[in-house]
Amino acid sequence: MSSYKPVIIIAGVGSGEGTGGATARAFAKEGYSVAVASFIISSYEYASIQSTFKSIRARYPLSQYSIRAALYNCSDRVRKPFLEITPEDIKTITRVNFEGAFAFVHEIISDFIKNEIDQTNGKRDFLAFTGSTYSLAGYLTTSASSMGKFAMRGLSQSLAKEFGKQNIHVAHVRISLSLIEVNEDLWLTAEAVASSYLHLAKQERSAWTWELNLRPAQGKD
Amino acid sequence: MSSYKPVIIIAGVGSGEGTGGATARAFAKEGYSVAVASFIISSYEYASIQSTFKSIRARYPLSQYSIRAALYNCSDRVRKPFLEITPEDIKTITRVNFEGAFAFVHEIISDFIKNEIDQTNGKRDFLAFTGSTYSLAGYLTTSASSMGKFAMRGLSQSLAKEFGKQNIHVAHVRISLSLIEVNEDLWLTAEAVASSYLHLAKQERSAWTWELNLRPAQGKD
Amino acid sequence: MSSYKPVIIIAGVGSGEGTGGATARAFAKEGYSVAVASFIISSYEYASIQSTFKSIRARYPLSQYSIRAALYNCSDRVRKPFLEITPEDIKTITRVNFEGAFAFVHEIISDFIKNEIDQTNGKRDFLAFTGSTYSLAGYLTTSASSMGKFAMRGLSQSLAKEFGKQNIHVAHVRISLSLIEVNEDLWLTAEAVASSYLHLAKQERSAWTWELNLRPAQGKD
Amino acid sequence: MSSYKPVIIIAGVGSGEGTGGATARAFAKEGYSVAVASFIISSYEYASIQSTFKSIRARYPLSQYSIRAALYNCSDRVRKPFLEITPEDIKTITRVNFEGAFAFVHEIISDFIKNEIDQTNGKRDFLAFTGSTYSLAGYLTTSASSMGKFAMRGLSQSLAKEFGKQNIHVAHVRISLSLIEVNEDLWLTAEAVASSYLHLAKQERSAWTWELNLRPAQGKD
Repeated sequence: MSSYKPVIIIAGVGSGEGTGGATARAFAKEGYSVAVASFIISSYEYASIQSTFKSIRARYPLSQYSIRAALYNCSDRVRKPFLEITPEDIKTITRVNFEGAFAFVHEIISDFIKNEIDQTNGKRDFLAFTGSTYSLAGYLTTSASSMGKFAMRGLSQSLAKEFGKQNIHVAHVRISLSLIEVNEDLWLTAEAVASSYLHLAKQERSAWTWELNLRPAQGKD
Repeated sequence: MSSYKPVIIIAGVGSGEGTGGATARAFAKEGYSVAVASFIISSYEYASIQSTFKSIRARYPLSQYSIRAALYNCSDRVRKPFLEITPEDIKTITRVNFEGAFAFVHEIISDFIKNEIDQTNGKRDFLAFTGSTYSLAGYLTTSASSMGKFAMRGLSQSLAKEFGKQNIHVAHVRISLSLIEVNEDLWLTAEAVASSYLHLAKQERSAWTWELNLRPAQGKD
Repeated sequence: MSSYKPVIIIAGVGSGEGTGGATARAFAKEGYSVAVASFIISSYEYASIQSTFKSIRARYPLSQYSIRAALYNCSDRVRKPFLEITPEDIKTITRVNFEGAFAFVHEIISDFIKNEIDQTNGKRDFLAFTGSTYSLAGYLTTSASSMGKFAMRGLSQSLAKEFGKQNIHVAHVRISLSLIEVNEDLWLTAEAVASSYLHLAKQERSAWTWELNLRPAQGKD
Repeated sequence: MSSYKPVIIIAGVGSGEGTGGATARAFAKEGYSVAVASFIISSYEYASIQSTFKSIRARYPLSQYSIRAALYNCSDRVRKPFLEITPEDIKTITRVNFEGAFAFVHEIISDFIKNEIDQTNGKRDFLAFTGSTYSLAGYLTTSASSMGKFAMRGLSQSLAKEFGKQNIHVAHVRISLSLIEVNEDLWLTAEAVASSYLHLAKQERSAWTWELNLRPAQGKD
């Protein structure tokens, strides 16, 4: 690691008890400063996201800090039969998964390419997207959500190829949806997910994973 | 086929020389009336698409016609390194592949579920999306386009499951991008694509294809 | 089509009531002579398969006939929890899906590359493999069968690339397993499958499908 | 970890400089005893593999040891145009990837299901297969090898589902083939691969990865 203190920027932390919060804590334990980028539905637009980054950059000046990791963990909550989906739902999905994801990533990559390569693992930086079961397949009530989640995976794949050439590691993580918290054989804990995020961040430049699936030992999806 | 005359609605016909036009001609030969739904970038929105459908429905009244097939063939033209993509490009992609696709499909499905099942093949109706090489994988300059194309595939998969239960056949067709027209060993002709669309439309209810890839004999993608 | 009478060779016809038989009838209607290559488990070996081809070639001499299509439709019946699978089961699977498939295809391709290109569709010849649900994913009691079926898909993909360059069309068709014959919404009919085989055989050289999935309108897999 | 000393059994270590050797060293550092299962092509058969396991079990008696991890890392070297592949090549592939893999896994799982669940991570045991670029797609000269590698992936997927229910974690790791050792941007190091094997072995029961791809930052496959 360089002499600059590493920072991870996480969008989509919510209450702090899910994947975003657990990832924040896992990276903090490894010495990262955590910058939480909070958005509300109405502000998933370029100008608003740029202003969020402006504050983050002010707080973590380049003279001492280096943004080395980022997680786009924002999600939507549309689960409806197709004919009940409204243009309003589509706008929400579009904002979170399309405009918001694009703006966030645009800011991140613009910062990342200025960093030096970390001599310990040959990596410039690490960017991850949190996907889900319906990022890879469409289901009965996920038509709107699958549009959004598929889009983010397409973005992730393109970025992995384009910026891998500059030693920027981009990964998409599909996590199972385990709706009922029964026990850890059937339920995905945020801490377990975070520990795989950390592994990805540490992978040396000679063996990177672009797409990771995580599911409970006895899970169904 | 019922006693009502069958209609196919095609969005994205352009000059008529590509996939949309060839599909129109192929279905016309089989006795379909062809309704071309023309949009321009600025009008990929719900209200505008509803008004297009209103005219189509007026022209093909339910007393004589039955809308039995539809093709969403609209596409975008963004090919840029990621950092050169503008919020304007994202808006274009969003309109064509997200808002436009959703609105088109919403109108189509609302009509489809009113149809009787065709007794010759056990199928209510047929809806297809034209995808491309970058619908299934992201490439160097396709980050924006892959977002849009992945989204449409996610939509298609969800609809195939949800409306298959009502004997509506939804299919996604990924066609290779063969940029240089050399010869038919290397170049995808619109007529050949159209003939596979027609085969899908005819597939009996007991053996449907949800996703089809088409590529030239000696193609590269 | 050339002036030579076309022949299709089909391995795995069984009682004639399944996919193999229906494909034979569908191609016969189009003017093909059908050569059925019958094997029994004990004879899925190179020498035995070569001798089968010798008789077929004798019956359809090159002066009048041209082998233009082939279907490897052989399958196995191992459905067991992993720990109950015996070395004998593995030997059966290996013979049918590995040694037998290799030997059959080796003979076919050796004949195919001698054919002229059909001027009507730019295709030299057509070779297909019948796969199933567990060709693309492993399931609880399919560990042995999935080994065999995955292997055939790997073979098919390699051949499609290697011989596509010589205008030989190789396709893998995954058909759903619909165990209970309820009605055609839920059950795959052999005739419907055969009609998609015929479509693949006819696809012009500019738009070929390498892998096709077929499932009933309301099927589960 | 239980009070019993953990053992990892690795098949396919070769010279010790590749993935097998690096994995052995990585697990040894974590406190595992390493049992190397050596086979030569002629001995990939059930009886021979059983006898190898007999010696291993004698060396690591159940009173003190517990077999908690296994890696099937054996591979073949067939790279030929399809028409040059011989029945002998097919036999080699069949032995290594089919009969050998089955026999190895059969012995491993029979031992695994007797183990107690590790209370630190809720996992009974961990079994991995080393796959490669041509485990997931067929290429020009890999028809024979892809048959073998696809088969192992099918086996892995079935086992992951069947034995996940018993908290046995089965994973398939596809590593890129980077033939020319230029630098670590383009070349996969065995140590980097081994570190991802170790991460998989440690993943808690609530978030397992069944399939992992590894490729160099600037790799091509």
